[in-house]
Amino acid sequence: MDFAHDARTEELRTELLDFIGSHVAPAEPAFVEQVAALDDPWAWSTVPVLEELRAEARRRGLWNLFLPGQTGGETLGAGLTNLQYAPLAELTGRLGRLAPAALNCAAPDTGNMEVLAMFGSAEQKERWLTPLLEARTRSAFAMTEPDVASSDATNISTAIRRDGDEYVVSGRKWWITGAMNPQCEIFIVMGKTDPGADRHRQQSMVLVPRDAEGVEVVRPMQVFGYDDREHGGHAELAFHDVRIPASNLIGEEGAGFAIAQARLGPGRIHHCMRAIGVAEMAIELMCARASERVAFGRPLSEQGVIRDWIAESRVRLEQLRLLVLKAAWLMDTQGNKGAHTEIQAIKIATPATVEWILDKAIQVHGAGGISQDFPLAEAWAMNRTLRFADGPDEVHKNALAKAEMRRQAAAAGR
Amino acid sequence: MDFAHDARTEELRTELLDFIGSHVAPAEPAFVEQVAALDDPWAWSTVPVLEELRAEARRRGLWNLFLPGQTGGETLGAGLTNLQYAPLAELTGRLGRLAPAALNCAAPDTGNMEVLAMFGSAEQKERWLTPLLEARTRSAFAMTEPDVASSDATNISTAIRRDGDEYVVSGRKWWITGAMNPQCEIFIVMGKTDPGADRHRQQSMVLVPRDAEGVEVVRPMQVFGYDDREHGGHAELAFHDVRIPASNLIGEEGAGFAIAQARLGPGRIHHCMRAIGVAEMAIELMCARASERVAFGRPLSEQGVIRDWIAESRVRLEQLRLLVLKAAWLMDTQGNKGAHTEIQAIKIATPATVEWILDKAIQVHGAGGISQDFPLAEAWAMNRTLRFADGPDEVHKNALAKAEMRRQAAAAGR
Amino acid sequence: MDFAHDARTEELRTELLDFIGSHVAPAEPAFVEQVAALDDPWAWSTVPVLEELRAEARRRGLWNLFLPGQTGGETLGAGLTNLQYAPLAELTGRLGRLAPAALNCAAPDTGNMEVLAMFGSAEQKERWLTPLLEARTRSAFAMTEPDVASSDATNISTAIRRDGDEYVVSGRKWWITGAMNPQCEIFIVMGKTDPGADRHRQQSMVLVPRDAEGVEVVRPMQVFGYDDREHGGHAELAFHDVRIPASNLIGEEGAGFAIAQARLGPGRIHHCMRAIGVAEMAIELMCARASERVAFGRPLSEQGVIRDWIAESRVRLEQLRLLVLKAAWLMDTQGNKGAHTEIQAIKIATPATVEWILDKAIQVHGAGGISQDFPLAEAWAMNRTLRFADGPDEVHKNALAKAEMRRQAAAAGR
Amino acid sequence: MDFAHDARTEELRTELLDFIGSHVAPAEPAFVEQVAALDDPWAWSTVPVLEELRAEARRRGLWNLFLPGQTGGETLGAGLTNLQYAPLAELTGRLGRLAPAALNCAAPDTGNMEVLAMFGSAEQKERWLTPLLEARTRSAFAMTEPDVASSDATNISTAIRRDGDEYVVSGRKWWITGAMNPQCEIFIVMGKTDPGADRHRQQSMVLVPRDAEGVEVVRPMQVFGYDDREHGGHAELAFHDVRIPASNLIGEEGAGFAIAQARLGPGRIHHCMRAIGVAEMAIELMCARASERVAFGRPLSEQGVIRDWIAESRVRLEQLRLLVLKAAWLMDTQGNKGAHTEIQAIKIATPATVEWILDKAIQVHGAGGISQDFPLAEAWAMNRTLRFADGPDEVHKNALAKAEMRRQAAAAGR
Repeated sequence: MDFAHDARTEELRTELLDFIGSHVAPAEPAFVEQVAALDDPWAWSTVPVLEELRAEARRRGLWNLFLPGQTGGETLGAGLTNLQYAPLAELTGRLGRLAPAALNCAAPDTGNMEVLAMFGSAEQKERWLTPLLEARTRSAFAMTEPDVASSDATNISTAIRRDGDEYVVSGRKWWITGAMNPQCEIFIVMGKTDPGADRHRQQSMVLVPRDAEGVEVVRPMQVFGYDDREHGGHAELAFHDVRIPASNLIGEEGAGFAIAQARLGPGRIHHCMRAIGVAEMAIELMCARASERVAFGRPLSEQGVIRDWIAESRVRLEQLRLLVLKAAWLMDTQGNKGAHTEIQAIKIATPATVEWILDKAIQVHGAGGISQDFPLAEAWAMNRTLRFADGPDEVHKNALAKAEMRRQAAAAGR
Repeated sequence: MDFAHDARTEELRTELLDFIGSHVAPAEPAFVEQVAALDDPWAWSTVPVLEELRAEARRRGLWNLFLPGQTGGETLGAGLTNLQYAPLAELTGRLGRLAPAALNCAAPDTGNMEVLAMFGSAEQKERWLTPLLEARTRSAFAMTEPDVASSDATNISTAIRRDGDEYVVSGRKWWITGAMNPQCEIFIVMGKTDPGADRHRQQSMVLVPRDAEGVEVVRPMQVFGYDDREHGGHAELAFHDVRIPASNLIGEEGAGFAIAQARLGPGRIHHCMRAIGVAEMAIELMCARASERVAFGRPLSEQGVIRDWIAESRVRLEQLRLLVLKAAWLMDTQGNKGAHTEIQAIKIATPATVEWILDKAIQVHGAGGISQDFPLAEAWAMNRTLRFADGPDEVHKNALAKAEMRRQAAAAGR
Repeated sequence: MDFAHDARTEELRTELLDFIGSHVAPAEPAFVEQVAALDDPWAWSTVPVLEELRAEARRRGLWNLFLPGQTGGETLGAGLTNLQYAPLAELTGRLGRLAPAALNCAAPDTGNMEVLAMFGSAEQKERWLTPLLEARTRSAFAMTEPDVASSDATNISTAIRRDGDEYVVSGRKWWITGAMNPQCEIFIVMGKTDPGADRHRQQSMVLVPRDAEGVEVVRPMQVFGYDDREHGGHAELAFHDVRIPASNLIGEEGAGFAIAQARLGPGRIHHCMRAIGVAEMAIELMCARASERVAFGRPLSEQGVIRDWIAESRVRLEQLRLLVLKAAWLMDTQGNKGAHTEIQAIKIATPATVEWILDKAIQVHGAGGISQDFPLAEAWAMNRTLRFADGPDEVHKNALAKAEMRRQAAAAGR
Repeated sequence: MDFAHDARTEELRTELLDFIGSHVAPAEPAFVEQVAALDDPWAWSTVPVLEELRAEARRRGLWNLFLPGQTGGETLGAGLTNLQYAPLAELTGRLGRLAPAALNCAAPDTGNMEVLAMFGSAEQKERWLTPLLEARTRSAFAMTEPDVASSDATNISTAIRRDGDEYVVSGRKWWITGAMNPQCEIFIVMGKTDPGADRHRQQSMVLVPRDAEGVEVVRPMQVFGYDDREHGGHAELAFHDVRIPASNLIGEEGAGFAIAQARLGPGRIHHCMRAIGVAEMAIELMCARASERVAFGRPLSEQGVIRDWIAESRVRLEQLRLLVLKAAWLMDTQGNKGAHTEIQAIKIATPATVEWILDKAIQVHGAGGISQDFPLAEAWAMNRTLRFADGPDEVHKNALAKAEMRRQAAAAGR
């Protein structure tokens, strides 16, 4: 057992910290300004300042870090393990609007690139993956539906019907992150090709171009009062008998559920590490504010309750980070299956812990904390979505408990 | 001891429930539409649908219910006690955008009318109170400042300097609810007339017209992404050597703190009861959703964790309501002083309890819960502000604990 | 609505406070000493100091206060309503070992006397109730069983079989409070007379003398490390084909469940109010300790975290007390049925709230808090039992939630 | 970074699991019986069954595992690092009464042996350490005092006065674990030799034989009704001008605080890992009970609330364990100082987490959970002491927060 990062990770952390400190952080005001000045308010990924950051990131070798090296026989990404990438993802989380995008490591494109790298045909890779790897286009992942509890994959109601050389896609999706962005060219859509098959073989995934006939971008969803335009928003989409070539199927028919599961593990780790970065930012702001703000004759930092919050924040966050890192290590050494419980555990633990810390940081900031003057309220709202994303916490707790009871029963010979 | 409402309260509850059911609730879509169509997005109080509701409310005797009868020798309001008005305020909280305004019982005008009724000169009443009582104008209360912890009144940095027959007001305020609204004609401004006086005699309150020279409406503040325009927003204001006639002083110099305290008690009860109404709405939505939504083969309503949330919500809310009603009763029977501890207690208990319930209701709604499709997320954000309003909870807990220790020491003869 | 006690209640509170202050509290050390010196360690109710207190209580009219006046046509008790008795029960809770017994208001005898008063035959009353009313004997209530989840009454496995003029009782019970006491002469035993009947008509209650042949007192149960001998302990009992006359049936066959329900309401209120008295004692000790104890150069009372605990304790306890009092008022005005939800709610809320307060009071006392030097640890352990007594909290939450959903569905016309 | 145990640790875990399964667990009933049959109820360490286990442990090389190898130039223990020993300590925690003692790895002797190994003179080692290493005697550590907040070392009031060739010890201690045991021959006593010196140079440590003249064992302390006799109880001690030779000083005068700090780190890790073992036992029992117990027609294991508890228990415990292991690794690689924050963090996190898990396990067991029939209630009580041991949590949170704020200020150049 060893709790130190390896040399490559340390090197990349140093490089990344320098890049963020010298380039990304100073660029934030320009980014906000340029996004605000856009004709299409959703086209965040096209602003010049981002282009410059990307160029610098590539120069420094900080590009596509998220992508494991030898996917499908080619070296596409940086060749990092999950455990190596995780602490880098944390660093990008502190400047969550800009840093991930500057490194071409922003969700949901990361997961979509993984899917294409792992399961895409050569043609699909060339057509869709290559431009994504170069940040020339963007993508979305269309799974959640408005009318059903989508954490139960058998509920998915979008139909993907084979008709000759084509598939016909019909259904409605929402909370499709990035889909408001006009630069988003392609959707990976989950639907049912065979509702009568086994529970986890009913679903398939297909590639639907955003400009295909019958694709309707219905409206942007709000997260509390935010439209999250810096991530391309969260769209409601309707697919009105959209026809796509049969070659747009990813993998084989019935593989949709398995692909979704494969996509989920690394993405979960990225999300959680970025959320930990957000919590670090919150602790930093909380400490700064507590030391500056005076009430009733002494700085907030001398008040016991606020010290209690700071201590609890640190203690909880240290534990959480170790769990996420262990999940990454398990993914690397034992695969998705061996990491199953931990991947569920970090889904349960991360949003709750980070929410608690953000709440306290907000409270220390007084009314400023809930306003546009600090990044805390928006971070809180975005973190709140994680208690639903990939299914509500309660579904994961239920599954984890069942697994625990099975494990205990086996150990006891019951 | 008797836990039943008196006859007058029951009558008014019946009348109000009918009015809300038959008029206010059906008018909400039109209100939202009309506000959205305004030239000035902040002029919410001018839309026709509200005018119609107000006329109906007056016809039914549901007007200015919040105002105790014999303030300053005149019968201005409905003559209700705090205990009689409290359950009516709860009912309006469920439709918080529209119902309070329809009855001319919306904050912050209610508190401002109380201040004018209790402490205003005849001239001030005629000029400012009368149009407010008739809902022809609106008002704001400018106390909180951006640069100091305003829960400590000695921190107030706005200066009110006497100069001949005038006062000169200089300073900066923020989170001034309603002040974005062009119909808001008058601000009650708290500042210091004598920084060298005793701790609670330094402050005074003056009336500053919104159109006075030197008044700057700097910007609207956001609450978790919302601009709260249906309440006239929350403005940052700057007073650049604003000159007002000396007759715009409310009460006497040095009375600012006492007036703020007097304003606070009833307002606290109104806020808390409306928040309880919000929580009732949340429980209602939570139960409805749980009974309709199916996951993993059975409705959410059959899942133990969700039942636990519903039960806890009910148990917590029943306790909270009783505490607020008791505080109202103490205000009526023993005045501000006798109700002091309870007035602090409801400030501590209400936002936390209602936040907990709203969080669970949101979770039951899945991603819909944080979106514009249900009133839960916005209600959550508005309730979150109550953990700061009138000072952060921590200040009130600290004071309540000191009082408790004093009481215990006295009882023990220490 | 009125939050003041009526005159009779105030009078009795004054009298009771005087009695406790002048007699009960000073007698505690002697009580502990005399119990420790007993030959039979379980015969706590026989010590002389208790006899003297009882005599004084009767002289002052503080006797059998718990018993409503006109039960079964006779005036047996003090004739108080639940709402009148509740605040008196609270006062006895602060000195929970001695005060309730001094007034002949100690569980489980109170509930048993109610059962006999309400459902007992004239013969049963004369034989068993009269000596209990005079505190000459004691009783126990034998419902909970070791091998089944007894909160589900259909699980009860003790058999009560009719055999000619007799019933034959066979089964095993545990946690039978008071049953270790040799002065405990009679058990009210719940068992099944007709396992094939409707769910709530299977059970009956019978009177089994402790000295009947076949009654075995198996062992005392421990509550954490306490044997709770000052309440007669908690026994495991075995009934080995115990024969009793058929006239020992209470009410009719199949009435067991209904009788248990009727016994439960007032007993719940008593328990909860005494627990509130315990919490008041804890707050008192916490404040005293905080003001006396110095760490790192200042008294604990100046530390923010401890003030937070004191404030939260007061805020939570005020809310809880109001809920229990409202439940009592509902029992009085609308009967068991009308108070159903509130009776469940106080079961859920009371142990949790009081546990929280006791935990904080213990923590303020440092290691002393968990020791025999303060009453806090034992009070904590006894309060912990309330999260199981009459069924675990979870059962009650489940039922309350179902009722809430039914109520909401009815209101919505679903 | 690597989350796998090294080969030596895995070997020892396997050996230890086998030893516990084949010898220790089966011996528990005999141990309880033999302790109960003792003439002196406190002489737990003398029972034959323990002697046999010790012999077997030595045969297997499972002896004095806690002691780092090269303390003071000699190889006394097994030579394990903290990180290697930690998972072994966890295993012993599950059978906390017997397993640590069987391996001669039971507190407080472990810490005392470390002190003697690190700071003792050759003479002290021979006289006191050697028999402890062979489990022929036992020892106690006398630091906490009844009249002061002992977490603040400057509060220590026990005096150690030099008088010629002797020291004279006067003072009162309590909660001295193991000191009721007649086999406990030696106390390490913390007192002040120079109250006028610098804050952390006032204290010294001396060796006081239990049979020295003037040593009074005043009484055993109770922990929630338990006397904890299987660990030699927790004594209150009085030192009435006890004279000891000057050579009984450990290290030098003024070194008491530093020695206490050095003793604390490894001991904290042992305590925390054993507590994690207790929590694992609780989860195991909780799962077993949930799968066996039926209420309202289905096993508890199918109830959502109980699954929620099991999942939360697992998620919290995994995080906690990683934090404690990291603290051990930091102790090994960076020493006490480098591990400072983590050593505080595990003190804060462990008792709270384990208490939460035990509470839920108890609740799943119904009334059985608080009784002598399961180890849960006693484990709960013992764990509760950890929220005070080495100072209350609040002291540690306060210190950790101050360190965090210092760290943040340094990083920000404040």
